[in-house]
Amino acid sequence: MNTHDFYIGIDIGGTNTMLALVNNEGEILKKYSFSTFADRSINIFFSNLEKLIFPLINEMDQVRGIGVGMPGVNSETGLIDNSVNFNWGSVNLCRELKNKFQLPVSIINDAKAAALGEMAFGKARDLKNFILITLGTGLGSCFVFNRQVINGFNGMASELGHTKIAKENRRCGCGKMGCLETFASAGGVCRSVFEIIGSDKKKTPLMNYSFNEMTSEIVTKYAAQGDETALKAYEKTGMVLGAKLADFINVFDPEAILFSGGLVAAGKFLFEPLEKALDENLLFKHKNKTQIRISDPNVNYAVLGAATLFMNQQEI
Amino acid sequence: MNTHDFYIGIDIGGTNTMLALVNNEGEILKKYSFSTFADRSINIFFSNLEKLIFPLINEMDQVRGIGVGMPGVNSETGLIDNSVNFNWGSVNLCRELKNKFQLPVSIINDAKAAALGEMAFGKARDLKNFILITLGTGLGSCFVFNRQVINGFNGMASELGHTKIAKENRRCGCGKMGCLETFASAGGVCRSVFEIIGSDKKKTPLMNYSFNEMTSEIVTKYAAQGDETALKAYEKTGMVLGAKLADFINVFDPEAILFSGGLVAAGKFLFEPLEKALDENLLFKHKNKTQIRISDPNVNYAVLGAATLFMNQQEI
Repeated sequence: MNTHDFYIGIDIGGTNTMLALVNNEGEILKKYSFSTFADRSINIFFSNLEKLIFPLINEMDQVRGIGVGMPGVNSETGLIDNSVNFNWGSVNLCRELKNKFQLPVSIINDAKAAALGEMAFGKARDLKNFILITLGTGLGSCFVFNRQVINGFNGMASELGHTKIAKENRRCGCGKMGCLETFASAGGVCRSVFEIIGSDKKKTPLMNYSFNEMTSEIVTKYAAQGDETALKAYEKTGMVLGAKLADFINVFDPEAILFSGGLVAAGKFLFEPLEKALDENLLFKHKNKTQIRISDPNVNYAVLGAATLFMNQQEI
Repeated sequence: MNTHDFYIGIDIGGTNTMLALVNNEGEILKKYSFSTFADRSINIFFSNLEKLIFPLINEMDQVRGIGVGMPGVNSETGLIDNSVNFNWGSVNLCRELKNKFQLPVSIINDAKAAALGEMAFGKARDLKNFILITLGTGLGSCFVFNRQVINGFNGMASELGHTKIAKENRRCGCGKMGCLETFASAGGVCRSVFEIIGSDKKKTPLMNYSFNEMTSEIVTKYAAQGDETALKAYEKTGMVLGAKLADFINVFDPEAILFSGGLVAAGKFLFEPLEKALDENLLFKHKNKTQIRISDPNVNYAVLGAATLFMNQQEI
């Protein structure tokens, strides 16, 4: 290791991709963001990536590796196989990127990357046993036990977003019905808004947005103004997510649940109903034992965690 | 360690308690079983235990310790605090037994004891990552990751039996509604029989049994004769349990799920619908990856696993 070594961390999300140049101290020296276009050809993504990475590599001759976090990827093999929310089919992303950039590349699940970043530089520096939940386009999860990430036997652990929720039955992008992320994600909040408008038809400024225009940021804005439909959409999200997490607290008894991703910006609109649902669904002996922590929304820990994959001194 | 050392292993179940004298090779030299009387005073239990243990200690001067497995116990402290299915209130069982028998005592969750026993002597000798499910009076669970048992931050991990099932709403002994073990346990099968008789009223010899007389063994006997009510009760159990386990395979991607406990004697009546429900609820990438293993029904691995707590050479 050299103090002048640099690393590229990439967080491929269902909506946007973040890319950063990181040093050994976890400082982000440069960062970029672009639309992933997950519903279009992967070649568009590669083209956007090349425009950013080639200049970085040419400018910095000590880029030691490229670490990537992405939903649905196999953390052992770097293979994507019809990942939910991505229209990229089956591809060996790790090999493709190695060939393109002639650098060491490592690819892991995005929630795992976030967990590594939080353990190295964020809100999990002191935690041994925790569950990390990322609330973005979809819902990602990573279980950490004795500071080791649970990868699973086939490298495919972490699909908490596709566990089934009680008494609800929305169609999920994975093809199944009733998955948690159909409610507990930025997309889920927007779906709830549309269901509530359809069901309650209470006058709300949210009626001015098409489904394609709607974002969780818009819903949060109106929730902050006291709009009942917006508040109800977050209440639904918090209740469904809290009830499901109670199951996992009952089973794993973690020290903390750490929430990250764009949706945590909703703050109390999300976390008050979530904590209420936890309380209602936890066994007595588990009540008020597990901390709720919220990641720093100004830092992308998935990018940092992906970059740590090539930092020898980091505990990963 | 001395090859002439002996250990007492105890498995306290909601219905029966098993006690065995075990040597370093995991051989059971003597074994006893008695009614736990979990719904009565703990003093009755202590009295029955003393009648068995004092003669053993007097006869064998090299009993090195007493290991105990029990549902709902805190694996870190040995405390019982209003364990579901036990009417014993709050008690420091570990301290009570140490005082009575003047021997080292260690108490852990019964499913954890079974997992340790299976890793040392049973069907998990070759497994690194697996979920153990015990199907007895209730439903116990233990998650093993890199051959380490997940204890939880407060020593209270493993309550898979009290996770919530979708679309079903039976009252559980824990006070909540819709817990998995209200269906997926010996008691759950009996409850299903009564619901099915009430709903279908199809002629069945099971109509000759009161609820207090009904056992899962009786239901299995009639299932083997093709009785539709008995088969439907097992189908319900398998479907509910399989759907829930699919959630945990989606999240943990284990190498195997290992089933133990009295209910596994139901064999295909339980496991055929369970495997069907797994297939229906698993994400595509998780289908047919996780092995289903069934413990040897003739060996009580919880007793052996509890005994291993004092065997230095065992990996625990």
